[in-house]
Amino acid sequence: MADEAPFQFLHSEVIEYIYKSADSGEVENGRNITKLENMGLRVGQGLIERLTKDTARFKDELDIMKFICKDFWTCVFKKQIDNLRTNHQGIYVLQDNKFRLLSHLSAGKQYLEHAPKYLAFTCGLVRGALSNLGVKSIVTAEVSVMPACKFQVMIQKS
Amino acid sequence: MADEAPFQFLHSEVIEYIYKSADSGEVENGRNITKLENMGLRVGQGLIERLTKDTARFKDELDIMKFICKDFWTCVFKKQIDNLRTNHQGIYVLQDNKFRLLSHLSAGKQYLEHAPKYLAFTCGLVRGALSNLGVKSIVTAEVSVMPACKFQVMIQKS
Repeated sequence: MADEAPFQFLHSEVIEYIYKSADSGEVENGRNITKLENMGLRVGQGLIERLTKDTARFKDELDIMKFICKDFWTCVFKKQIDNLRTNHQGIYVLQDNKFRLLSHLSAGKQYLEHAPKYLAFTCGLVRGALSNLGVKSIVTAEVSVMPACKFQVMIQKS
Repeated sequence: MADEAPFQFLHSEVIEYIYKSADSGEVENGRNITKLENMGLRVGQGLIERLTKDTARFKDELDIMKFICKDFWTCVFKKQIDNLRTNHQGIYVLQDNKFRLLSHLSAGKQYLEHAPKYLAFTCGLVRGALSNLGVKSIVTAEVSVMPACKFQVMIQKS
């Protein structure tokens, strides 16, 4: 039994709940995505606070990103990010070849359009975690072949 | 880092979200409790299905209850139920001396009134798990001293 199952099932129910209680349509879909993203944001903030309680200070931004890819990802998804790339100018791409919150969807192309609602929470999760570590960012996600998934993090210099 | 943290934080956010998006008042509070209970129901159904995939058939009702107290509880809350009692006439009392979804609340009496909303999801969870195993039940919860908690399961004979 996978340890992350209770979290996965609850995550699916939350999406179901939010989409069922709202009207359909483009505008509403956008609002629902925002709701999920905000929920992820707060969960990410809470989690990272607990996770870094006894951690040494991070050296730099890359050090923080590595922590997100390893410790943070493992805590939530019971696996690490498979690949981390950066242009060394504030853009990071985190690739998960078997993203857990997509793995229950069929890999068929016809489900690709549903992917965004399964990614919004996690985009918020990453943004929330980073924000609590003092890093402001914009996080987006894209899927080309399910259940592989890329999260792009754009650091916002202030 | 406790493994159940992502689930806990998400659970808290769900309560927050449901209560924030509804009006306040007695009636609304009842509706929110029902929403949480229904969400738990579906999560419980999904989880038990996955958990019992490779399990031998259960001998009887008590055997099922023991599975809920051990395997199922451990899967969700990373601990077992501390005490299981029954009157052998269809009533079971499951006691958790340190219920995880209450442990972030202060133990003070003033928070006791908030306990129901932190228990509704789990009541549904147990009811959903049992229903998928063919056992119809009514599940209620009570707290006397936080974070200890008792779940009462009344089996509905058909």
